[in-house]
Amino acid sequence: MVRRRLSDVAVKSRLEGLADVVLDAAKKSKDPAISIPVRSLSNVTFDPKRRIIEMGENTQDRTFFNLGMARKFMQTMLIGAACKELFEEKVTTSLRELYYRTKHTLAGSSENTFDDQAESDPIIEDLEVTLDSLREELHVRAESAGTIVGPVTLVDDGDVIDCARLGKGGYAVPSIVEPEEIKIKKCSAKFILLVEKGTQWNRLSEDKFWKKHNCVLLTGNGQPPRGVRRLTRRLHDEYKLPVYVLVDNDPWGYYIYSVVKQGSINLAYESQRMAIPDAKFIGLSSRDPEKYKLPRNVGIKLNDKDISRAKEILAYPWFKKKEWQEEIKHMIASGLKYELDALANKNFRYLTTDYLPRKLREKDWLD
Amino acid sequence: MVRRRLSDVAVKSRLEGLADVVLDAAKKSKDPAISIPVRSLSNVTFDPKRRIIEMGENTQDRTFFNLGMARKFMQTMLIGAACKELFEEKVTTSLRELYYRTKHTLAGSSENTFDDQAESDPIIEDLEVTLDSLREELHVRAESAGTIVGPVTLVDDGDVIDCARLGKGGYAVPSIVEPEEIKIKKCSAKFILLVEKGTQWNRLSEDKFWKKHNCVLLTGNGQPPRGVRRLTRRLHDEYKLPVYVLVDNDPWGYYIYSVVKQGSINLAYESQRMAIPDAKFIGLSSRDPEKYKLPRNVGIKLNDKDISRAKEILAYPWFKKKEWQEEIKHMIASGLKYELDALANKNFRYLTTDYLPRKLREKDWLD
Repeated sequence: MVRRRLSDVAVKSRLEGLADVVLDAAKKSKDPAISIPVRSLSNVTFDPKRRIIEMGENTQDRTFFNLGMARKFMQTMLIGAACKELFEEKVTTSLRELYYRTKHTLAGSSENTFDDQAESDPIIEDLEVTLDSLREELHVRAESAGTIVGPVTLVDDGDVIDCARLGKGGYAVPSIVEPEEIKIKKCSAKFILLVEKGTQWNRLSEDKFWKKHNCVLLTGNGQPPRGVRRLTRRLHDEYKLPVYVLVDNDPWGYYIYSVVKQGSINLAYESQRMAIPDAKFIGLSSRDPEKYKLPRNVGIKLNDKDISRAKEILAYPWFKKKEWQEEIKHMIASGLKYELDALANKNFRYLTTDYLPRKLREKDWLD
Repeated sequence: MVRRRLSDVAVKSRLEGLADVVLDAAKKSKDPAISIPVRSLSNVTFDPKRRIIEMGENTQDRTFFNLGMARKFMQTMLIGAACKELFEEKVTTSLRELYYRTKHTLAGSSENTFDDQAESDPIIEDLEVTLDSLREELHVRAESAGTIVGPVTLVDDGDVIDCARLGKGGYAVPSIVEPEEIKIKKCSAKFILLVEKGTQWNRLSEDKFWKKHNCVLLTGNGQPPRGVRRLTRRLHDEYKLPVYVLVDNDPWGYYIYSVVKQGSINLAYESQRMAIPDAKFIGLSSRDPEKYKLPRNVGIKLNDKDISRAKEILAYPWFKKKEWQEEIKHMIASGLKYELDALANKNFRYLTTDYLPRKLREKDWLD
């Protein structure tokens, strides 16, 4: 069951519940304690049935009267209070601004509440899991670095945005695309193509690939940011659109695909709202250079880091399928990785006119 | 005098002129030679009257029958031929794809035309200066990483895009925004605010700052890419809009501002079409933390690299004005740099409600 988005009222009341823990303990002269789900790899599992990475049930108590925890306890309360302010002012903010907002020197001391952002970021993640509220629900933005074009109409702040009428530039995908922020009014596309890099997105947008193939083109200019993943997931859920992911043929490309598909290890608790277990890997496959006759000299030699990362990925439970083991092993055996840009070696529009049409025609993808 | 954009026909004919040099020499059994303007710092000057960084008149011959130059000569011809292909196919491409397109192994040898992109990028810059054609005129894209929102209507591929009706997300600025690609149909804004980072752009977009202050909001998510600089310049030229640049208070912020204002040292030949000598620096100034009462603990200690970079900038001729010398020296003396994000220390909307309105009211900027 997919959890629905929490309303501001619901999240705010959960935040207040956290504050009540402290108040109640104070009244009873007891040590206030919060129970926080553990976010380490030890508490993460891959559910083969749901096909997403999920967080387990382990929790840890964070108490105030404990020398090792008092600082973090104080920080948790400060971030909680700042989030409450976000609700009251009806604004969103960034991780970095949240750090600055909550940083001050403790009265009568030279100690800062936070020394740097590396201290505040994990506290926000703690709050997300403790309140079972996503970052977006806490009004915290990530970078917005994505672009969309295609036959889909969105409503953002009351403006009706037809993404089929935005030239080749497209609409810049905001970080928060929850239904309360962005409505998907209409979508007549048959599938979604999520492209790793801006260069290939630009190629396809310039060529109006989305028009000919009736699809939505999305990119996150690298590892897709949360807004792009979430919008893809919403289009997938609300319009039952298949999702094809197009990445470089290297271990980072495989990983980007796997984050889209089953979520990330670090942020396993987001999988239920971000992951798309049905997403397909459309390329570049390590078989493609041969199939599409790319010369070996446009491949890049795998370095030690690539090889060890590829071996790590081979061992992930969600890459255990025979086809995936073959795909990754074939890359390692070839000794080469290939960027999407290398398709330009054939000709500048090869991606649009040959590679993708054949991939789609032959249903040549991995699941 | 601002040079007008070259038509495809004009650039193509200049490219063919380059090929003719080789043909003519071959017919006469002579050594073909191309004269290429020198792109090093030694050939760059700051014109205090025009207030832009400009390339000088020095050139260097590149000849084919010269062991040290033959490879580069061959590469220049290959890139030229690929650009001609771009014109004929009416497409644009990226630097990286241009590298892949022109890479092959020379027949009967194991030598590649290019070993990596570090070899092809400078050749493209050579061609730009030799043909006096900008990269955009050669159909070569940079990254598109910018966003625009505000009372401006653009036409892109026949689509009419009202940037005042794109919610908080905005229009993703393409890399090539020359008049043939993007028309500015209408603009009722009073000024342009070019914001360094996406976080502050998001803050201002969410708060509809552009509506209240009747301005265009632009960001390049860091150092503004060429498309964002060029679009800013076009709005400045075509609608006589003042440009205010909002950056972090650190040496990199100063440098970003100076690139917008008078161009970059590396690409001095672009200044005449990219630079905006009238652009103003609206903040963060090293005086702002005191004026706006930012606590010292949200400043970040300058490290050795910051200090040496600040001293380099102090010495640039275009920072010689008294106000600028004071601005930079004051930062060094304070020992601190400040990010725009630090304004959130006051409250989340401080940038929108207090900082910028006061800056604009008091005309508190540097020229």
